[in-house]
Amino acid sequence: MSVAEQIRTIAAEARQASFAMAKLSSAVKNELLLDMAHGLVNNCEQIIAENKKDLEAGKERGLSTAMLDRLMLNEVRIKGMADAIREVAALPDPVGEVTGMWKRPNDLMVGKMRIPLGVIGIIYESRPNVTSDAAVLCLKSGNAVVLRGGSEAIHSNLAIAEILKAELAKRNIPAAALSLIPFTEREGVTEMLKQEEFIDVIIPRGGESLIRFVVENSKIPVIKHYKGVCHIFVDATADFDMARDIIINAKVQRPGVCNALETLLIHKDVAERFVPFIFQALSEQKVEVRGDEEFRRFAPQAGAATEEDWYAEYLELILAARVVDDMDAAIDHINRYCSLHTESIITGDYGNAQRFIREVNSGVVMVNASTRFSDGNQLGLGAEIGISTTKLHSFGPMGLTDLTTTKFIVYGSGQVRS
Amino acid sequence: MSVAEQIRTIAAEARQASFAMAKLSSAVKNELLLDMAHGLVNNCEQIIAENKKDLEAGKERGLSTAMLDRLMLNEVRIKGMADAIREVAALPDPVGEVTGMWKRPNDLMVGKMRIPLGVIGIIYESRPNVTSDAAVLCLKSGNAVVLRGGSEAIHSNLAIAEILKAELAKRNIPAAALSLIPFTEREGVTEMLKQEEFIDVIIPRGGESLIRFVVENSKIPVIKHYKGVCHIFVDATADFDMARDIIINAKVQRPGVCNALETLLIHKDVAERFVPFIFQALSEQKVEVRGDEEFRRFAPQAGAATEEDWYAEYLELILAARVVDDMDAAIDHINRYCSLHTESIITGDYGNAQRFIREVNSGVVMVNASTRFSDGNQLGLGAEIGISTTKLHSFGPMGLTDLTTTKFIVYGSGQVRS
Repeated sequence: MSVAEQIRTIAAEARQASFAMAKLSSAVKNELLLDMAHGLVNNCEQIIAENKKDLEAGKERGLSTAMLDRLMLNEVRIKGMADAIREVAALPDPVGEVTGMWKRPNDLMVGKMRIPLGVIGIIYESRPNVTSDAAVLCLKSGNAVVLRGGSEAIHSNLAIAEILKAELAKRNIPAAALSLIPFTEREGVTEMLKQEEFIDVIIPRGGESLIRFVVENSKIPVIKHYKGVCHIFVDATADFDMARDIIINAKVQRPGVCNALETLLIHKDVAERFVPFIFQALSEQKVEVRGDEEFRRFAPQAGAATEEDWYAEYLELILAARVVDDMDAAIDHINRYCSLHTESIITGDYGNAQRFIREVNSGVVMVNASTRFSDGNQLGLGAEIGISTTKLHSFGPMGLTDLTTTKFIVYGSGQVRS
Repeated sequence: MSVAEQIRTIAAEARQASFAMAKLSSAVKNELLLDMAHGLVNNCEQIIAENKKDLEAGKERGLSTAMLDRLMLNEVRIKGMADAIREVAALPDPVGEVTGMWKRPNDLMVGKMRIPLGVIGIIYESRPNVTSDAAVLCLKSGNAVVLRGGSEAIHSNLAIAEILKAELAKRNIPAAALSLIPFTEREGVTEMLKQEEFIDVIIPRGGESLIRFVVENSKIPVIKHYKGVCHIFVDATADFDMARDIIINAKVQRPGVCNALETLLIHKDVAERFVPFIFQALSEQKVEVRGDEEFRRFAPQAGAATEEDWYAEYLELILAARVVDDMDAAIDHINRYCSLHTESIITGDYGNAQRFIREVNSGVVMVNASTRFSDGNQLGLGAEIGISTTKLHSFGPMGLTDLTTTKFIVYGSGQVRS
C-alpha cells in the first residue's frame, strides 16, 4: 500500500473505532487511562531506549541543545507524563452531560446532550509528551485520535503510542481508537489533511509555520492559534504597584510563551508619573522597551517603536509601549493589532473595568490580573488541549469539553406536527 | 474597481462595522429590527415593483411555475417577512450572557461571556424572504452580515436590503453592517469565499449542489447541511397506532423537506404484524414503499430496495423500509447510512429509549415523536438560521446563540502567576 492508502486506512479505522469510543462509560475510560499511566512507567526503559535513537539522529542532524533538551525523555519526565494522564483521568467526563432541557407547549421535552466530536487529528512538533497528553484528552472525551508527531521524535512517539495502544487491546477497545502516523515524510501530513470523510477536526500544536502549513492544506476544519500579541492597558486609576507587579510577571516570568505580554498601553493622564516608574522596573529586569514618542518623552532612554512593533510577538525580553489618550484609544489599538489571544486592564475604576470586559473581544479578557493566567489549567479547565484564537467552535484555552459537541435529544409521547 | 476588489471592500467594511454592532445594546437592536419591519411594510410597493422585474426575467429564462411562485412577493408575503422580523426582535439577546462563572483557588473569578462571531456570510437561493430573515438574525446577535442571494432574485433582494440599510443609517450604525453583494456572476460567490480575513463563517442555504460548491471553494469555515436521510426505528414494544401516526406525519405532511422520513426500520419480532399494517397505511397515503426481502415477505406488493435506497433522500412520497434483528442492527444501520440529521425510535421500552438517545449521535435524536419537529422553531430556539449536520461549532438546528461564541472573562485583584 502507498503512504496515501495507508493513511486513508488509518483514518477510516479511526472513524469506525470512534463509534465504540463514544459508548464507553466514564468508569471504563478512567480505568483505561490509569492503566495507560501505569504502562508508561512500567515500560520506562523501552521508551528511553527508543528516545536515544531520536537523540542520536537529532545530534547528527545538528539540532540545537535547546531542541535536544525538549526531545529528551528520562525517568522523571516519563513519570511526569504518567501524572498528567492521571490528572486527566480525575477530570469530570463531559460526555452525556445534559446542558439544558425544556418543555415545549406540546409537551415535548427537548434538551441538549454532550457527545464526542468523533475523530480528532493532532499534528505536533518535537516534545514527545504531547503524544500521551493529547491522546488521553481525546480518549477521555470519547473520541478516537490520529496523531502525527514531528519526524525528530518518531521513535519516542511510536514507543509511547504502542504502550498506550496495548491498554486498549486489554479492554477489547478497537486499537484504531489511537493511531500514530508512522511516516516522517511531509506526505504523512498532507494525506492526513485530506481525510475529511473520517477526521472531524485537526488541532495543530507547534510554531506559526506548522500551523500555516496545516491551514493552507487542510480540507478538515482546523482549530488554531497563530500567535499571542497580548496587551495590558494601564488606566488612569491604576494602582502603580499592582500594575508593576502584573506587567513584570506578564513580561518576565516566561517570555517565550504565547500568553506573555507584548504591548503595554498607558493612559496619558498618568504617563508622566507611570512611564519613568515602569521603565525603571522593566530595565531592572533587563527588558528592552520600544516606546512611541509620548512614552519616550518621559523615558528618553527607551528605544523607538515602529509600526511593526505593534504587531510583534517578541517571545523574548522586549516590550512595545505606547501612551494612549483614553479607553477608546486603548480599545481601538487592541482591536487593530491584537491577535485575539489575551488582554488585561489595570484599573481602579469600576465602569472602565466593566467596559473593557464587555468591549474587548479576545479569547481571554482580564481585569487586574496577569496575562500569564490565560491557560486552560490556570483558568480551571483542567489539562489544556490547545488554544483557539478563532471564534468558531471554541475561543480561548480549550479543555475536554471543547472536544465535544451537543446533540438535541427529544422525549415525546406520540407527538406529530400539525 | 474589479468585482474582486469591490467584494474585498464590502467584506473589509463589514469587519469594521462588526465592532460597532458588537457594542449595541439589546434595546437599540430591538428598536432597529422593529423599524426594519415597519420599513418593509411601508415600502411594499417598491419591493413588489422590483420583484416584478425578477419575475419577468425568470419567465424569460423559463423558470418553472414552482420556482416563480417561490420568487414571487406580494403584500401578504411582505407582511409575513415583517412579522418574522418582529419575532426575532422579541427573542432574548444572547450577547453578553455569562454562561458560567467560577472562583479559582487564588480568588480569580473566571467566567464565559457570549459575544458575536463577527461577520457572517450567508449564501442562498431563490426565496427573497431569506434576505430579511437571515439579516436580522445576524444583526440581533451583534454581527455584521454579508448576503449573497440568487441571481434570479437580485432586484427583490437589493430592494429589501436597501430598505433595511436605511434603518441602520437613521441610527448612525455603519451601513456596512448589512451588505448585499450586487453581482450576479458566480465570481461574486468565489470572491466572497476568499475573504477569510474579514468574514468569520459562511452559512449556505440551498440545494446540495450550492452547498458542495461553497464547501469546495471556501477558505472560510462553512456551517453546512447537505441532506437529511432521517430514520424511524419501530421497536418490538412500539404502540402500533402511535407508530403509524408518527410515520405518516414524518413521511407525508411535507415530504420535500430535510426533516421528512426517508428510511423506516422495523424490529423483526413485530414485522409479521406491523409490516402489513404500516404498508396499508402508507399505500392509502400514496407512499411508494421500497422494502428489503424480509419486509416484502409480509408486504409482497412493496417494491424492492437496493443498496442505493438506504442512502436516498427522496424528498417525495417514497420510503425505504427494512426489517432489522434488534436494536444493535438498527443502530448499526443508522450509523452507516444516516446523514447525521434526525432519527427517532418508537418504543414502549424505557431501556431502549434511553439507549437510543445515548448511542445515536445525529444532530437530533428523538423518542416517540415525528422527525418533522427537527426545526429550530419547533424545538424552541425561535427563528432558525440553518441546520448543521457537522459537529464543529453547532450540531442540529441553529438559532441566535449559534451566531455567537464565548470569550473568557477574568476578574482579578492583582494576581500574578508564580
